[in-house]
Amino acid sequence: MADFALHTDFEASSVPIGELDLCCVRMQNDARWPWLILIPRRVDVADLDHLPAEDRHRLMEEQIAAMGAVRRMGEALLRPVIKLNVAALGNVTPQLHVHVIGRRRDDAAWPSPVWGVGQAQPYSEGSRVVATAAARDALGL
Amino acid sequence: MADFALHTDFEASSVPIGELDLCCVRMQNDARWPWLILIPRRVDVADLDHLPAEDRHRLMEEQIAAMGAVRRMGEALLRPVIKLNVAALGNVTPQLHVHVIGRRRDDAAWPSPVWGVGQAQPYSEGSRVVATAAARDALGL
Repeated sequence: MADFALHTDFEASSVPIGELDLCCVRMQNDARWPWLILIPRRVDVADLDHLPAEDRHRLMEEQIAAMGAVRRMGEALLRPVIKLNVAALGNVTPQLHVHVIGRRRDDAAWPSPVWGVGQAQPYSEGSRVVATAAARDALGL
Repeated sequence: MADFALHTDFEASSVPIGELDLCCVRMQNDARWPWLILIPRRVDVADLDHLPAEDRHRLMEEQIAAMGAVRRMGEALLRPVIKLNVAALGNVTPQLHVHVIGRRRDDAAWPSPVWGVGQAQPYSEGSRVVATAAARDALGL
C-alpha cells in the first residue's frame, strides 16, 4: 500500500497547523471564517464509512477538539462564533476530509453554507499568526 | 429537563423513517437526492460538542448506518450514488441534526453542496415507498 500523501488541493487553499493522532490539521486560508480541515492520514479513503471503527471514533474526538480550536480562533480574532458547521463533503477533492467552520450571524454567507460563496480572502500575516497560534494552542500542538 | 420534541422544521420538509438508539431518522422529501437526516433525541443540543462522548460515538455509528441506507436508497431508486456528503450545519434549524446525502455526477447540484439549490421536488408516492422501504430495510427498522 502506498504511503499517505496530502492531496495537492489542500496545499493551494490552506496552511498547516499540525498533526493529531489520526489527522493532518490545516487552516483554510480564508479570513472570512475560522475554519480548520481534518484529513485522516489514511490511503484510498473517500468516505467516512471506509474508515475502520477505531479510526472513526478517533476522528470524532479530533472533530470535537477542532471545534474547540475553531471557537478559540474566533475569540483570538475578536469574532467569536455562535455555531459550528462540521461537514465531510469531498465532491471536488476526493481525499477524505472534514471541514470545521465557525459561523456568525454577520458572516459573509449566514445562514447559508460557506462553500462557493464569493472569493477566499487570504489572511494578513498578522491575523494568520493570531489564528494559527490559537488553533495550535487549543489543540496542544 | 423538558422532554425531547422534534423541531417543527423537520415535519415540513421530511418524512419519518424510524428510531435508532440515539437518533430519530427522517428522509428529506426531495427526490433529487437520497437523503436521510439524523436527529439525536437530546434536549438543548445545537452542536456536536454539546453531546457527551457516549452519544457522540453512537452518533458516529448511526451516521455509518445511515450512509449504508442512503447507498441502498440510491440503488432501489435505480440511481446508485458515488459519494456521500455528511454534514451537521444547523444554521437555520438549531436542533442538532446530521445530513447524510447521496451524490452522483449527474445530480442537480454536483459538485456543489445541495443546500439552497433550486426547489425541493417531493417524491411521487411510488418512489417514496421504494425509498423509505430501502432505508428501513437497511437500518433494520
